[in-house]
Amino acid sequence: MRDQFHDQLQSVFDDLAAICRQVEVAVGRATKALMNGDVVTAEEVISADIDIDRARERVEDAAFELLSLQAPVAGDLRTVVAALRMVSELERMGDLSVHVAKIARLRVPEIAVPDAARPTMSRMAAVAEDMVRRVADIITSRDVEAAIILGRDDEEMDQLRRNSFAELLADDWAHGVEAAVDIALLGRYYERIADHAVSVANRVVFVVTGESPHAVSGN
Amino acid sequence: MRDQFHDQLQSVFDDLAAICRQVEVAVGRATKALMNGDVVTAEEVISADIDIDRARERVEDAAFELLSLQAPVAGDLRTVVAALRMVSELERMGDLSVHVAKIARLRVPEIAVPDAARPTMSRMAAVAEDMVRRVADIITSRDVEAAIILGRDDEEMDQLRRNSFAELLADDWAHGVEAAVDIALLGRYYERIADHAVSVANRVVFVVTGESPHAVSGN
Repeated sequence: MRDQFHDQLQSVFDDLAAICRQVEVAVGRATKALMNGDVVTAEEVISADIDIDRARERVEDAAFELLSLQAPVAGDLRTVVAALRMVSELERMGDLSVHVAKIARLRVPEIAVPDAARPTMSRMAAVAEDMVRRVADIITSRDVEAAIILGRDDEEMDQLRRNSFAELLADDWAHGVEAAVDIALLGRYYERIADHAVSVANRVVFVVTGESPHAVSGN
Repeated sequence: MRDQFHDQLQSVFDDLAAICRQVEVAVGRATKALMNGDVVTAEEVISADIDIDRARERVEDAAFELLSLQAPVAGDLRTVVAALRMVSELERMGDLSVHVAKIARLRVPEIAVPDAARPTMSRMAAVAEDMVRRVADIITSRDVEAAIILGRDDEEMDQLRRNSFAELLADDWAHGVEAAVDIALLGRYYERIADHAVSVANRVVFVVTGESPHAVSGN
């Protein structure tokens, strides 16, 4: 039987999934701005971040109300606290998209990423965006298996980051210090977006099973 | 009159201050490792991080127990939730110290920061460590004025970061791409430590006054 508490909690998780979709859009647009030197799209990412911040505030208010008026215990309490943490991480992922967009904007009319670095950077961006998209689905479906798989896929991001460093530290790197610094920081931002995506997915595992992904998957 | 709830809450805040002291040590040691190419100290920072992680788990367990058994409302509820967020941020500051230590370790027997970049990087490290030290005091004293001043001092870190970029992107930068990338990432790590310090201080303002630092200081 569903009661008022669980209806409100479901509404909080619906809001989390919606915020995650906003983050997915932000990551996609930031990458488009970056790869095309597109200042209009960069500005869109930067100005839309306030919507994510406001959505976070609404989720926080709803979670506080649940804690305050319903005084949940045990699994319900852990779920509400998990929601508070998830929304912080989603907001942070939005901020990291803004950082990407700001590097794109800073280099216009140039493009921050030189051709030699585009394949690796494009792949990092695609992996990050795909992870955010899958996390939105995981929040909605509470699919524990999909969440555990997401955690494993983070290894591709780590490998891409190593490849990216190898490229810009190679003897034949001909694009100077500025491009190398941009790429190192961009790599860091995409990697952190992926880290947060894994963390949000792990919290879904915890909410559903009461266990960490490590305990559930036996790895 | 002090009751059991407020005694336990005080104990949580004592633990937060103690963790912040551990982070202060981690930042100081990571900087020492970085500036001296000191692999032993770098390893100490990396291996001691598990202590911060465990202390975080203890604070989280205590906060959950307070929420679960005492079902606080209004200001008390907000204080417990603030404690949960503060401990996440303190743990993250410890992780960032580990990132600094790992760059130090990666470059041994060289020193990651060339002489030309030492003054700015040393100052960034000193500002970050000082902010962490002051936050530990602010958690203990609940000194709202000191917390608001800390937020303003973050501006020095922003200026140092700009100076650091100007140095490594100058035409006379003679230390190559690797050192530039290290310095850009190190600057990012110290800046994030400072950001988290401000955020923790802001949460103390909120716990004491029920208002954001913006509302309290009128700025």
